[in-house]
Amino acid sequence: MFATESRICVRYKETDQMGVVHHSNYYIWFEVGRSDFLKELGLNYRELEQRGLMLPVLETHCTYKQSARYDDQVIIRTKLTELKGVRLTMAYEAIRERDKALLAYGSTVHAFTDNNLKPINLKKAFPDIYDVFIKCLEK
Amino acid sequence: MFATESRICVRYKETDQMGVVHHSNYYIWFEVGRSDFLKELGLNYRELEQRGLMLPVLETHCTYKQSARYDDQVIIRTKLTELKGVRLTMAYEAIRERDKALLAYGSTVHAFTDNNLKPINLKKAFPDIYDVFIKCLEK
Amino acid sequence: MFATESRICVRYKETDQMGVVHHSNYYIWFEVGRSDFLKELGLNYRELEQRGLMLPVLETHCTYKQSARYDDQVIIRTKLTELKGVRLTMAYEAIRERDKALLAYGSTVHAFTDNNLKPINLKKAFPDIYDVFIKCLEK
Amino acid sequence: MFATESRICVRYKETDQMGVVHHSNYYIWFEVGRSDFLKELGLNYRELEQRGLMLPVLETHCTYKQSARYDDQVIIRTKLTELKGVRLTMAYEAIRERDKALLAYGSTVHAFTDNNLKPINLKKAFPDIYDVFIKCLEK
Repeated sequence: MFATESRICVRYKETDQMGVVHHSNYYIWFEVGRSDFLKELGLNYRELEQRGLMLPVLETHCTYKQSARYDDQVIIRTKLTELKGVRLTMAYEAIRERDKALLAYGSTVHAFTDNNLKPINLKKAFPDIYDVFIKCLEK
Repeated sequence: MFATESRICVRYKETDQMGVVHHSNYYIWFEVGRSDFLKELGLNYRELEQRGLMLPVLETHCTYKQSARYDDQVIIRTKLTELKGVRLTMAYEAIRERDKALLAYGSTVHAFTDNNLKPINLKKAFPDIYDVFIKCLEK
Repeated sequence: MFATESRICVRYKETDQMGVVHHSNYYIWFEVGRSDFLKELGLNYRELEQRGLMLPVLETHCTYKQSARYDDQVIIRTKLTELKGVRLTMAYEAIRERDKALLAYGSTVHAFTDNNLKPINLKKAFPDIYDVFIKCLEK
Repeated sequence: MFATESRICVRYKETDQMGVVHHSNYYIWFEVGRSDFLKELGLNYRELEQRGLMLPVLETHCTYKQSARYDDQVIIRTKLTELKGVRLTMAYEAIRERDKALLAYGSTVHAFTDNNLKPINLKKAFPDIYDVFIKCLEK
């Protein structure tokens, strides 16, 4: 299955007083992965918004296995796992580069909306983009 | 069931270019709710860490129903929903104060560990704290 | 001089692995102070943006005296210190409530722009708002 | 003068409802620049903390010239500009890669402390590190 890899270097700001990365940051890294994934498909998210397509988040989930620490190199593996007319689901893994340890994995579900956050049917409104996603799922 | 309410006023920094609150902030608000919940039980989390008990996050989930916007007053309702010897689960609702609309709901699962993030059995290591949680579940 | 006070309870997320609040958060607290200050003057910033006035930041400064820690109650004192046709300057103090210790102080300079971030002359474009600021400086 | 360059790709999370990067993020980028700068000198900040040296922030300043936007490539140029026995000052520029536009510039002042945030004299406590900084200033 088609997947992209994004590389993150853990920022000092991303740690908390537990000495490890605060759990909320994984969602920000997943978003970086999502942005790179779309770019790899030729779908720059900046341009999607300009064309009038937004992908607001409906659901997020993450399971944490090991802690990331300041200055760790982390790879975010991103995949598209499901596509429906009104939503898509993406899955992510955060892997520590040094030893390939799985730090966390998660998923996000997104709606298709216009710039006013009104739901739209992707297949009808943006058939070219729908096709790109479909082909990506078939890989 | 015993629940606490924390009040959040949405910060400008918490918005993104979609014009609404970025989804990752709900987890930060849930953490505020969790902190207040523990305080209400007489368990200041700052003191728990000083006594050698940490509650690192094992799992997080959130479902988003409506967007929060800058300057909205949001209530975080927090409950303890499950307690085992080595972990607990908490549930949260984010409610817009103005119209009582449910903006999002979610949950977090936490391990019990010492300051080095080694798992501990709460019932054995901190029976007084275990009792507080048990009583809270029975309410 | 007219000043407002905003109360912040330090969030766990705001700490870093040094065990204290990360320095960048003071600017977010100052923004909370600024938002409350404007509201106190009857100038809700949400409404200002809707009327077509934005206050993007031109300059920021902060001096740190003592560390804030998780769960500390912090008061942000906010004042308007200078007003020109095209910019204003605000000053802030972050004070620990418990012992009134000054944790940090700083300032931010803001331009007046329209929604496209084009500079505007406040006195000409929004004389009513200009008057409110002038009166505030005279207090 | 010796300087390092760090490359940042603007994250969606770093934008706010003004449609541009929130001003507080520049300080986080400066911190990334600082981390890379130290690493380039052979001084991994993670190891410095393990050896008992911390560099808490005493002062921060930033002037904003142009807005960064989502997905912009930004270069952070970092320099050491002053070294005293008890503090150092670093300077930063944020440059948009595409057109080399200067987006912002700033500086941070840091104390030398031990792990308990007690001030120390760098020259006496860590002469090897002091020497590295001195040589860097002379370049």
